[in-house]
Amino acid sequence: MDHFDYHAVRATPVSTDAILHCERVPAEAIARAVGTPCYVYSKATLVDHFVKLKTAFAALNPLICYSVKSNGNLSVCRVLGELGAGMDVVSGGELYRAIAAGVPANRCVYAGVGKTDEEIAQALDAGLGLFNVESEEEFENIAKIAAAKRVVCETALRVNPDVDPRTHRYTTTGKKETKFGVDIERAKAFFRRYGRDSFCRLNGIHLHIGSPIYTTEPYVESVRKATALIDELASEGFSVTTLDLGGGFGADYETDQTPTLATYAEAIVPLLADRVRAGLRIILEPGRTLVANAGVLLTRVLYMKSSGEKTFAICDAGMNDLLRPSHYLAFHFMWPCQTTAAFRPSRRAKEMGMDGLRSIDVVGPICESGDFLAIDRPLPPLRRGDLLAVFTAGAYGMAMASRYNSHPLPAEVLVDGASLSVIRHRERYEDLVAHERHPANVAML
Amino acid sequence: MDHFDYHAVRATPVSTDAILHCERVPAEAIARAVGTPCYVYSKATLVDHFVKLKTAFAALNPLICYSVKSNGNLSVCRVLGELGAGMDVVSGGELYRAIAAGVPANRCVYAGVGKTDEEIAQALDAGLGLFNVESEEEFENIAKIAAAKRVVCETALRVNPDVDPRTHRYTTTGKKETKFGVDIERAKAFFRRYGRDSFCRLNGIHLHIGSPIYTTEPYVESVRKATALIDELASEGFSVTTLDLGGGFGADYETDQTPTLATYAEAIVPLLADRVRAGLRIILEPGRTLVANAGVLLTRVLYMKSSGEKTFAICDAGMNDLLRPSHYLAFHFMWPCQTTAAFRPSRRAKEMGMDGLRSIDVVGPICESGDFLAIDRPLPPLRRGDLLAVFTAGAYGMAMASRYNSHPLPAEVLVDGASLSVIRHRERYEDLVAHERHPANVAML
Repeated sequence: MDHFDYHAVRATPVSTDAILHCERVPAEAIARAVGTPCYVYSKATLVDHFVKLKTAFAALNPLICYSVKSNGNLSVCRVLGELGAGMDVVSGGELYRAIAAGVPANRCVYAGVGKTDEEIAQALDAGLGLFNVESEEEFENIAKIAAAKRVVCETALRVNPDVDPRTHRYTTTGKKETKFGVDIERAKAFFRRYGRDSFCRLNGIHLHIGSPIYTTEPYVESVRKATALIDELASEGFSVTTLDLGGGFGADYETDQTPTLATYAEAIVPLLADRVRAGLRIILEPGRTLVANAGVLLTRVLYMKSSGEKTFAICDAGMNDLLRPSHYLAFHFMWPCQTTAAFRPSRRAKEMGMDGLRSIDVVGPICESGDFLAIDRPLPPLRRGDLLAVFTAGAYGMAMASRYNSHPLPAEVLVDGASLSVIRHRERYEDLVAHERHPANVAML
Repeated sequence: MDHFDYHAVRATPVSTDAILHCERVPAEAIARAVGTPCYVYSKATLVDHFVKLKTAFAALNPLICYSVKSNGNLSVCRVLGELGAGMDVVSGGELYRAIAAGVPANRCVYAGVGKTDEEIAQALDAGLGLFNVESEEEFENIAKIAAAKRVVCETALRVNPDVDPRTHRYTTTGKKETKFGVDIERAKAFFRRYGRDSFCRLNGIHLHIGSPIYTTEPYVESVRKATALIDELASEGFSVTTLDLGGGFGADYETDQTPTLATYAEAIVPLLADRVRAGLRIILEPGRTLVANAGVLLTRVLYMKSSGEKTFAICDAGMNDLLRPSHYLAFHFMWPCQTTAAFRPSRRAKEMGMDGLRSIDVVGPICESGDFLAIDRPLPPLRRGDLLAVFTAGAYGMAMASRYNSHPLPAEVLVDGASLSVIRHRERYEDLVAHERHPANVAML
């Protein structure tokens, strides 16, 4: 699953017999070196996940475009780019990140409903591999800008297969009545209307039904609908040469919660292998499944507090650092980084089935009740100064972080074996106000 | 209410007869000057709200400490500081902002459950006016650090009056079983235990029951409980010389939704006037009521799109710029900045009672379905290129903004009459990665 494990450390007293390590580095050593809160990523886990995905889908020889929105750190992108990944970007900022990380623009695909004129021009100038187009107005706009520049570009139409991925309503994106893509019937009209554009070549279909998706059926159903659509389009003379399956594969927020990448592949590959042999190009856009379990958020317990029936562990990380618990009511397993052998976790789960745990609200320093990392979570005894690891925080963690309550953004660290690199420095107070200035009246018209 | 109004502009064609102005500057001129999305604040509104508050509560001669967390921009803080406001801060970063804005530290009060040792030391060194203390462990920690520095500081105990403010559960903070403060019974024990500390002087009571609160009763109830507590403490020999009433006054997300500041004052002042004459100091911590209606978010419609029964206006501002609609399901009135006389809004409301409106989902560019500014909102006809104003966005707008999907943080503008100042420059792509670096292995033990 990942390279975050509790090891017994013989040299230490028996009372601290389970020590969390990221690869070969103790979590506590990282916290001491860079302070808390900080995000810690495991390079070995990133590589392992990427290789597993590539192997599982080898029969389709897909272009694997890493979903930069899940974790855009340059070093994370670079690790995956060096393994051959392309990048799935959703903004000009993400395309900038991909290129800065050394990934050629022609290995990038660009989705998203709100591409601005400037972003489209930037992508055309960079030599983007593929636009995933979400609406008629957007296609017309890209075509107009491409024609003005006399640049030819490739586009895929995002299609909503109207499949329910059974995930959070905020991350369900492939049903009718979302802002994304067009439905199957409308896709045919779209090809008839735009499928002969000379600068904006429309020769792909893009699917992305949501995230995280914990069963294979929604993929099977949407691929079947997409291939049927490709055949119908072929009968009208439109050649679809790229099928972008999007992302959405799950991550193990709890141990063994999600199908293996091999399981997803076993369901999907047979539906497409013949078409790939006949020349169809497949694109995958994994994000969460690659990076979620490759990261933890380390946070220090500042104060313990009881209030009524509740016990609170007040930590230095809050909703500003990790929004998912508050925003999606998402579960993140968390556990002290140093604990006794009796509390060494053998798996990550909502119910640990251990004696001696106590129900605790793990909260942050932000001044609202919605600032929590966990509510009523059974945990080993905690006290001020303890270091907690919040697991499966590599995806949509730092990516959604804010400076709410004027907290500087946390540090990010990449561990590789026994070494670590600070891949994003912690912000200082000066950074909070670097773009601000005192009023100096500027004359208007 | 504020200085954002639609004026008829005679020189323009009849078809664009209602033009949104911030004070004397047309919104469209601001958008053209600084781009979109951008936050626009009205200095006259800030000043007007502050003066109204000060006047309404004049009989209590309160120290008005502006809640920096609602909008920490240095220029906003400076406008209020120059009117005599102190600052209510909840982090070292906010204290840094207050001081950078020219507000003396002795006019600052510092609340929040998660004060770190570094932040406490920073506040002591700066000469902070008052710590609002949230727990026993925190008091002991402040006392220890103050004693080590041989610095005397003032503290108030945050008390939960167990009053239901009837607001969002995420912003309800004065009930039992929250992470904030201690309950009334425990407050007495707290004073008995810590009320004689020589470095950390405990001589205040702090209340903050939530935000926004749209009736006066929760204030009356909590002030009555606090004064009863003060009397009980006096009978035990503890002199409470400061009562900090916190904030939470509402804002007009809809026209005339919230009581006037005079109405809040009429309910609260009689309960405390005698005590103030006898020497009690009152502190108020307004945030939202000062700045919410002093700001709008301007966003451009990038694309219009129909999908099933839905119509979407896809804008360049999303949950990354303004999280409140998605996170709290908060209502923000929004309207095109340039419209015909028939669609000139006479008030801001969920139901406008106009003919010719169409139900629209106003969404942003972020790749999730949870990225919306409004769902099923009746609006005048919209088209690509239209400028929309999202009203009442001055509080908890920019303060909660993130770079999700690698969107640079937006610009902020302060308007003063006919002039405007860019008080925060729009970020560039380079800023997104300024703290990051490529891995260079650093040897670890």
